[in-house]
Amino acid sequence: MPTLVLLRHGQSQWNLENRFTGWWDVGLTEKGVAEATDAGRRMAAAGLDFDAAFTSVQSRAIKTLNLALEAMDRLWLPVTKNWQLNERHYGGLTGLNKAETAAKHGEDQVLIWRRSFDVPPPPLEPGSAFDLSTDRRYAGIAVPAAESLKDTIARVLPYFEAEIAPQLRDGKRVIIAAHGNSLRALVKHLSNVSDADILHEEIPTGQPMVYDLNDDLTAISRRYL
Amino acid sequence: MPTLVLLRHGQSQWNLENRFTGWWDVGLTEKGVAEATDAGRRMAAAGLDFDAAFTSVQSRAIKTLNLALEAMDRLWLPVTKNWQLNERHYGGLTGLNKAETAAKHGEDQVLIWRRSFDVPPPPLEPGSAFDLSTDRRYAGIAVPAAESLKDTIARVLPYFEAEIAPQLRDGKRVIIAAHGNSLRALVKHLSNVSDADILHEEIPTGQPMVYDLNDDLTAISRRYL
Repeated sequence: MPTLVLLRHGQSQWNLENRFTGWWDVGLTEKGVAEATDAGRRMAAAGLDFDAAFTSVQSRAIKTLNLALEAMDRLWLPVTKNWQLNERHYGGLTGLNKAETAAKHGEDQVLIWRRSFDVPPPPLEPGSAFDLSTDRRYAGIAVPAAESLKDTIARVLPYFEAEIAPQLRDGKRVIIAAHGNSLRALVKHLSNVSDADILHEEIPTGQPMVYDLNDDLTAISRRYL
Repeated sequence: MPTLVLLRHGQSQWNLENRFTGWWDVGLTEKGVAEATDAGRRMAAAGLDFDAAFTSVQSRAIKTLNLALEAMDRLWLPVTKNWQLNERHYGGLTGLNKAETAAKHGEDQVLIWRRSFDVPPPPLEPGSAFDLSTDRRYAGIAVPAAESLKDTIARVLPYFEAEIAPQLRDGKRVIIAAHGNSLRALVKHLSNVSDADILHEEIPTGQPMVYDLNDDLTAISRRYL
């Protein structure tokens, strides 16, 4: 039976400050570091083990994975990093906290974005301090100006199908350390969640979500450890 | 001009205790952690940057690499881990400190091993607590019972030629985080050091060794940062 664990990164500095982060590369807080190590300890204690690990190219997810693997004595596992597992790109909202977003765009508009599956936030303004289009890690990639959840799914799932699903079908046990919305994309797909319901799926930081899968990679069950 | 940096892991618990470690998976001391982070900071300050990273499947080298890359804001770089970059396997000496080794085998024999390029230490005794032949990370690999420096070179260099040299020839900037003897193998090859002289090459923990290479990957110069 293929086993897959999804792990959202531990608390980041901007989780703590309640700011839209998206592709901006923010580090873990001390609490986030502790969450990551604790996640690894609990997975080991539960008898979970892995053959392969995947993560985004964002430091908070990579570091969470490294800390969890270290706690499991599994630093030696192969780790594949890919931008397609990145967080949703929040465009012009990047860096804003809740109050700033409401002040800038109005409560009604914020509610529309929050409740929408396919309406992206405003694009990142040209020349923004949060522009990553010339960041070397994204060389050769068309960095989006903003993404809806639908847009996020449209780049997460092809990566899952091409690179991760074959390993699961080969019987490999896989952990994916990623982000609230890139993991939502996977949960929606694996557990067949509707467009409306996936918006309400809140994935907590640092809590391993364990999937038992059928051989065709549909979900038998999922649970937090 | 291809750039290659060799980085020996930071101080490990058994470096501190002066015990033969080899393939046994020993963690970093606090000093070793600090050395690794400091190595990353100094590489960044010196304007060094990388496109690819390689390491062994031993925690002390992987963690050193992770800490250095984090300090350089380069956690997102691709990291390839392979057992062929492991430390020399010290066989039956594994776990012994200097005094225990002399007491067990005699000062004269210790001197022979220390001065020898191609005499391996005694093989690991069957049933030893340090036997790694059934460790999952070495599945499919004939774990040696002991290695001379010559044996170590015989598995390091083919890996370098097959996986690392092509990237250097493509103009990629590479860092290799590994071990005293797997790095000796590379220094011997790149800098054309004799069998006798390479035994005296002491590579300190946590000090980046920067190679400037010709296009044919012979060394122009090397220096510690």
